[in-house]
Amino acid sequence: MVVILQKNATEAQVQNVVKHLEDYGFQIHKSTGTERTIIGAIGVKPNFDTRNISILDGVDEVYRVTTPFKLAGRSFQESNTVIKIKDVEIGGNHVVMMSGPCSVESEDQIFRLAKVVADSGATILRGGAFKPRTSPYAFQGMGEEGLKLMRAAADQYNLLVITEVMQIEQIDLIYKYADIFQVGARNMQNFSLLKELGKVDKPVMLKRGIAATIEEWLMSAEYILSGGNKDVVLCERGIRTFENYTRNTFDLSAIPVVHKKSHLPIIADPSHATGLRDQVPPMARAAVAAGADGLMIEFHHDPETALSDGPQALLPNTYLKLMEELRLIAKAIGRTL
Amino acid sequence: MVVILQKNATEAQVQNVVKHLEDYGFQIHKSTGTERTIIGAIGVKPNFDTRNISILDGVDEVYRVTTPFKLAGRSFQESNTVIKIKDVEIGGNHVVMMSGPCSVESEDQIFRLAKVVADSGATILRGGAFKPRTSPYAFQGMGEEGLKLMRAAADQYNLLVITEVMQIEQIDLIYKYADIFQVGARNMQNFSLLKELGKVDKPVMLKRGIAATIEEWLMSAEYILSGGNKDVVLCERGIRTFENYTRNTFDLSAIPVVHKKSHLPIIADPSHATGLRDQVPPMARAAVAAGADGLMIEFHHDPETALSDGPQALLPNTYLKLMEELRLIAKAIGRTL
Amino acid sequence: MVVILQKNATEAQVQNVVKHLEDYGFQIHKSTGTERTIIGAIGVKPNFDTRNISILDGVDEVYRVTTPFKLAGRSFQESNTVIKIKDVEIGGNHVVMMSGPCSVESEDQIFRLAKVVADSGATILRGGAFKPRTSPYAFQGMGEEGLKLMRAAADQYNLLVITEVMQIEQIDLIYKYADIFQVGARNMQNFSLLKELGKVDKPVMLKRGIAATIEEWLMSAEYILSGGNKDVVLCERGIRTFENYTRNTFDLSAIPVVHKKSHLPIIADPSHATGLRDQVPPMARAAVAAGADGLMIEFHHDPETALSDGPQALLPNTYLKLMEELRLIAKAIGRTL
Amino acid sequence: MVVILQKNATEAQVQNVVKHLEDYGFQIHKSTGTERTIIGAIGVKPNFDTRNISILDGVDEVYRVTTPFKLAGRSFQESNTVIKIKDVEIGGNHVVMMSGPCSVESEDQIFRLAKVVADSGATILRGGAFKPRTSPYAFQGMGEEGLKLMRAAADQYNLLVITEVMQIEQIDLIYKYADIFQVGARNMQNFSLLKELGKVDKPVMLKRGIAATIEEWLMSAEYILSGGNKDVVLCERGIRTFENYTRNTFDLSAIPVVHKKSHLPIIADPSHATGLRDQVPPMARAAVAAGADGLMIEFHHDPETALSDGPQALLPNTYLKLMEELRLIAKAIGRTL
Repeated sequence: MVVILQKNATEAQVQNVVKHLEDYGFQIHKSTGTERTIIGAIGVKPNFDTRNISILDGVDEVYRVTTPFKLAGRSFQESNTVIKIKDVEIGGNHVVMMSGPCSVESEDQIFRLAKVVADSGATILRGGAFKPRTSPYAFQGMGEEGLKLMRAAADQYNLLVITEVMQIEQIDLIYKYADIFQVGARNMQNFSLLKELGKVDKPVMLKRGIAATIEEWLMSAEYILSGGNKDVVLCERGIRTFENYTRNTFDLSAIPVVHKKSHLPIIADPSHATGLRDQVPPMARAAVAAGADGLMIEFHHDPETALSDGPQALLPNTYLKLMEELRLIAKAIGRTL
Repeated sequence: MVVILQKNATEAQVQNVVKHLEDYGFQIHKSTGTERTIIGAIGVKPNFDTRNISILDGVDEVYRVTTPFKLAGRSFQESNTVIKIKDVEIGGNHVVMMSGPCSVESEDQIFRLAKVVADSGATILRGGAFKPRTSPYAFQGMGEEGLKLMRAAADQYNLLVITEVMQIEQIDLIYKYADIFQVGARNMQNFSLLKELGKVDKPVMLKRGIAATIEEWLMSAEYILSGGNKDVVLCERGIRTFENYTRNTFDLSAIPVVHKKSHLPIIADPSHATGLRDQVPPMARAAVAAGADGLMIEFHHDPETALSDGPQALLPNTYLKLMEELRLIAKAIGRTL
Repeated sequence: MVVILQKNATEAQVQNVVKHLEDYGFQIHKSTGTERTIIGAIGVKPNFDTRNISILDGVDEVYRVTTPFKLAGRSFQESNTVIKIKDVEIGGNHVVMMSGPCSVESEDQIFRLAKVVADSGATILRGGAFKPRTSPYAFQGMGEEGLKLMRAAADQYNLLVITEVMQIEQIDLIYKYADIFQVGARNMQNFSLLKELGKVDKPVMLKRGIAATIEEWLMSAEYILSGGNKDVVLCERGIRTFENYTRNTFDLSAIPVVHKKSHLPIIADPSHATGLRDQVPPMARAAVAAGADGLMIEFHHDPETALSDGPQALLPNTYLKLMEELRLIAKAIGRTL
Repeated sequence: MVVILQKNATEAQVQNVVKHLEDYGFQIHKSTGTERTIIGAIGVKPNFDTRNISILDGVDEVYRVTTPFKLAGRSFQESNTVIKIKDVEIGGNHVVMMSGPCSVESEDQIFRLAKVVADSGATILRGGAFKPRTSPYAFQGMGEEGLKLMRAAADQYNLLVITEVMQIEQIDLIYKYADIFQVGARNMQNFSLLKELGKVDKPVMLKRGIAATIEEWLMSAEYILSGGNKDVVLCERGIRTFENYTRNTFDLSAIPVVHKKSHLPIIADPSHATGLRDQVPPMARAAVAAGADGLMIEFHHDPETALSDGPQALLPNTYLKLMEELRLIAKAIGRTL
């Protein structure tokens, strides 16, 4: 922590700040300049509330020096985290594709779409069985029956399964059927849930909250990592801004920033970020060009009858054509897909 | 729903839109202007995803006409909801005060502060026993022991108790000790939790999520109301914006807007909105002047040793002086406090 | 400036950072902790681009220590700036009222409204002669004719005149008729205009840009102050956020923050912040309660025929009633109005 | 315009709304549903302030049906605008590159960099002679001397020149030396300047304001177009959000949205959007993948001594390598670069 004293701080004020810092356990380095005094307070206390110093008399600004996250940081682990599940790697040079419908709706639907996923060369089947909906009157998912169908379809086509967990009580059930737990944007700071997922021995994909800073997102990853689960994947899915011609603002700059600050893989979800089918292909291409380690894409054989998010689902043919473009872009930057 | 066709939409496109709307169950009113066609689609389907129409060929814009919330809306209930708990009313002409520490920390602390709450004329004691913290390394609350102490202190000074519930498993426990459940900003869209609180027969105060629109906030209230619990109080506590000289932007305009759109009472929390002690009094005064039905204020007899949020806690004397100013402001607008 | 080196920075990297800082003219204080090295770089260079250091190898974070503004800062001048124009003071204990129509529309209109302004006890007449409009097809103001009418009406009722200047070419003209220049939100970073206003010997009221941080706003004030014009008044008028039930989010927290960081007076404009007549009174009351040094309020005797912003204009009677409430609130916090 | 009446609106209120609409000159289509009445008001008045209707008694919501821009809209002109300057086309299948330093600093500098621009296959030289700076104490540009040097360097290497105009008085001067006028983000709503540029017979590139919605951006383009200048290019350069690990949030979703709503070409500027050299290549690649019609990129042979924005300037070699990657990505989506 670095404490900047006010230009006209008195010596008594400076002493009081120093005393407080020492009482809190920090080691002190004081620099007295011509204009003002700066105090460096050394000591790793990621959870120290710097406002305790900000409010002391004579203090102008306080800067936390260490990031509040540790295990998620690049300075904790220099090499990229590569998560291996069966023969799939997330975080390596190959860009992974997680494709499928928004919700599992029926046996016919999920088997039909799983076949397209496999044909496209993707390796992970996505699909929701428990759906967080803004409206209490909307379709809330098939529950365990959906999980069973998704597992069976994935096994038939040699795919992995990723699906969303919304509450602690669902963890054991989902564990039986899925390979990767997905935490949705609205639960990014459901700390009780994150703590429990820290105890699980399967990977967790943590979506960024709609208004979460990258720092808060990494802090939420820290909750899972600090519980003992090292296999965390991040997923950018759009943030809330003032713009209303788009549903969300897809923050692709987050990709190089996360790669610099953290060793964890980062996936992008253009389907939820844009919310409209015709914007998905350009944004999917942009995400791969920006360096995403994978994409999550929704498609459906009959979007008009989809029980949720049909308008953002690609048609299977558009999805297959997009896969070809994505491969060329991945190749242009030295990766495979 | 109102559907605006593109200027150059073909007759076949118009027919296709009409057919889709009819298939979805809407009743159609078509207006053909000189420039373009407008279709009014009548039918109350609060959960209809209007993007299903937006993506049809020839469609320019789609506007949902009915609000997605019903029970929370002023058109469902014209008169203000007034919640009565023992001899306290929330939502009436009297501005209610919910005061106390951020966290319950010890018997001595909570009894000492409860006395100040009672002396100040406030009627509700606030305090956290389960704390949602951004960092997994920070103080997480006293748990049930904290709840017991808070109940005992409140009973001694004839106060009500409000405290935060973070997960479904805590509901039964908190029910035993508290008069009002508080749902924190990060859980505003924890729909599983909201559904369970809809079944409880005690009031729920729902804080606005840091990036929640007023509409989403009222939709979350709808989750509780539609479960059968009619006693919902809203609480504005600051939203996230680009400004970083303040912790949050306290959205006081939300107060008259909520009063217009909804019949539910709205409380304001200047302590969390500003995060710094010296900004709490001006913002508390502004909230009462803007028409808030109550305030939630944090204070502490020794903020420097507080286990959480000390920097935003008022000292007891500042708190008592503020109460006097608030009474004058309430009087200026024809209310009591 | 404080430079935090990466945990694993090499000695060569540290030396390279030190060399760069010295080349840029800074004086160096190096603190070597157990975990990492921190360098304090002393020297007042408000315009130094800290990114020059951020991009050096081995650097983790860089914090600017001095604020980029100087003349606008509280550390430059401890006592409040109080601007005297004839017998009106802005920035003192008396809360000043700037009232009138959005645009000057006719002789009859402006004289009629100026009378109400005077009757209400306000001392400054507002009104636009040159209007910045989002649409090129909208009413653009009466120009010089409007200025003449406003001056005559103000003289008749012993009022001061404030009006907006949109471009450098208008300065001389407006100087002849107005007592205070107003710079609109969209021109807050029109640096060419600000520089010219720095040479003028009449006060300037600088509205906050719709997406300007408080720091940028004070930097824009600095442009005027550094040109030699010390009489700058700030005006909060709402910022852009994700919320769309309101036109802007009125950032009342800016009032105590500006009072802490700067010695300049701050006015609030609830008419533009809310954009709707029925939200103006609660927000006007809240602004006074939050400590604003004045208010700018629009009203009109016949809002339905107003040529601009009719929907946010109060009716004269509502305006007069509001003035009474505002006086009680000012009194509650020890001020007059 | 579509007006939704409140559920419990009285017949007198409905009549009053109808009367107002007719008085304003609209043609009325009334639909009376079981729940509420909807009024379609037909008539193209892009500058009508819909709040005039919102505030009438009994009105629930009002939606403007026509976009406020006309000439900039896709419905005004279906085919893409392709601007031809000498042998360069902006808006066609070829992705144009505008490259060069932030500021012109010296003859040696600009000739040296212009050679790299030409070698890279780019066709437009960028460089600032008049610089809008947040701080009044920062370098403000070389002025006319800079324009002369840029023109000479461009002529030597057969390049076009684009440079920023900050105020009306600079238009004639810049016209003599530049091929394209650039309007910076801070001047996007400097309507006086836009009007004058509407009368010029050279193209204008209009950068998006840091907090401008796409709609406001197109409205600002409308100011230029309605003055008679049809050659407007848009440029996305990042918007302001809550995220602070990045300088701005680069809104690449704006690219497909602008292509849908408007016929004007859209360029992307990853240098200003990110502000840091190492984030420029991934974001440049993403912009081309998202469908940008061109890029504006800053580079410098010695960024450490650059007088402005050195930290975001690429080194010439990185720039040349990036150009190769961009060509592969353009090819992947069927374009050239």
